[in-house]
Amino acid sequence: MRHKYSVKVVGLLCTPDPKHFYTESVESLVLDFGGIPGDRHYGMTRLSGGRETHFPRGTQINNRRQLSLVSVEELQHLAERLGVAYDPLAGQMGANILLSGMNKMTKLPPGAILMFEEGVALHCEGENHPCRFPGDFIENQNQHLSGLRKAFIREATGCRGLVASVERPGKIQVGEVGRILLP
Amino acid sequence: MRHKYSVKVVGLLCTPDPKHFYTESVESLVLDFGGIPGDRHYGMTRLSGGRETHFPRGTQINNRRQLSLVSVEELQHLAERLGVAYDPLAGQMGANILLSGMNKMTKLPPGAILMFEEGVALHCEGENHPCRFPGDFIENQNQHLSGLRKAFIREATGCRGLVASVERPGKIQVGEVGRILLP
Repeated sequence: MRHKYSVKVVGLLCTPDPKHFYTESVESLVLDFGGIPGDRHYGMTRLSGGRETHFPRGTQINNRRQLSLVSVEELQHLAERLGVAYDPLAGQMGANILLSGMNKMTKLPPGAILMFEEGVALHCEGENHPCRFPGDFIENQNQHLSGLRKAFIREATGCRGLVASVERPGKIQVGEVGRILLP
Repeated sequence: MRHKYSVKVVGLLCTPDPKHFYTESVESLVLDFGGIPGDRHYGMTRLSGGRETHFPRGTQINNRRQLSLVSVEELQHLAERLGVAYDPLAGQMGANILLSGMNKMTKLPPGAILMFEEGVALHCEGENHPCRFPGDFIENQNQHLSGLRKAFIREATGCRGLVASVERPGKIQVGEVGRILLP
C-alpha cells in the first residue's frame, strides 16, 4: 500500500447515550475490534437497516459501520452551504473522529487504511451517505432556519465523511497524526 | 448497490489440515463471521504477515482474508500459461470457492458483495496477490516442469482471485447462483 496523505486528529467524539445519535467530544478513544465500547455503533456485528436493501431489515451482518469519520475542510464548506454554525456540526452528525489536512476525504476508496501514530489502524469502508438522523437533529437545533432536514441530505452528499472499522485496536488521542495508505 | 454480474458456485474447498495450505473439495461450507470453522484461514482476527508491511509482523489485526475465491475462467487461462493441469489448481492454490460466469473476477473492487441464493453474503476485500505457497506447491506437484514457483507469481498476478470475508453467515452449496452487487 502507498502512503499518499497525512491527516491530524482534531476531535474525538462518542455517543454519551447509545439511545441517541449525537456524539460529544472526548480527549481520547480506546478502540477494540468492535469499535468504541459503549458507543451507539459498537459491535462486531449489527442488524441491517434501510441502507442494506439487499438484506431483509434486521439481518445480522458484519459491522463495517463502527466509526464515522468527518473532515474539518468538508464540514466547514457544509456549514457555509447550510448557513449553520460549524462548531457543533461533527457532534450533530454523530461523528467519532474529526480529521484535518485532506480535501475530499469522503472520496477515499474502500480499503484505504488510516494508520495513527500511537498504533490504531482503521479500515475505510467507503462513503457515509447522508441519512435523516443528522438532518432532523440539525433542524431541531436551528429552529430559526427552515428546510434543514432536506437541505442536509442534499448538501452533505459526497462530503459527509466515511464509515470505518477497526483494523488494529488501541488508543487514539486528539492531536495525533495519521497516515493514509491507499490500496 | 447495483446488481451487475451473476456467478455460479462450481466448487467448494477447505483445508483438511490447517497446518497445510492446500484445500480439498467438499459439497458444502457452513460459514460463521470468522469464515470456515477449522479452516487454516478461520478467525475474526489474525496475525499480520509479509503482506502487511505497514504493521510489525505478528500484529493482531482484523481478519479480512477469511476466504479465497477463484474463477474457472481465470484458472483455465492460468493453467494454460503455466502448462499444468487445470483440475487440481484451485486446491493447490488454497482456494475455498470456485466460481464461473465472470471474466476478470479478480478485478472486482473492494466493497463488492456476493449474495448467494441460500442467504450467505461475502464481502470482497480485494485482489489476492500471489504469494510463494501455491507456487511451491504447484512446483512440487509438477516436477517434470521447472521454474513454476516464479512463473506462478508472474502469471497469476491479476488473475489469482479475491480475498473475501463473511458479511452474512450461513450454508453455501455447490451449484448455487450468486449475484454480485457493486458499491
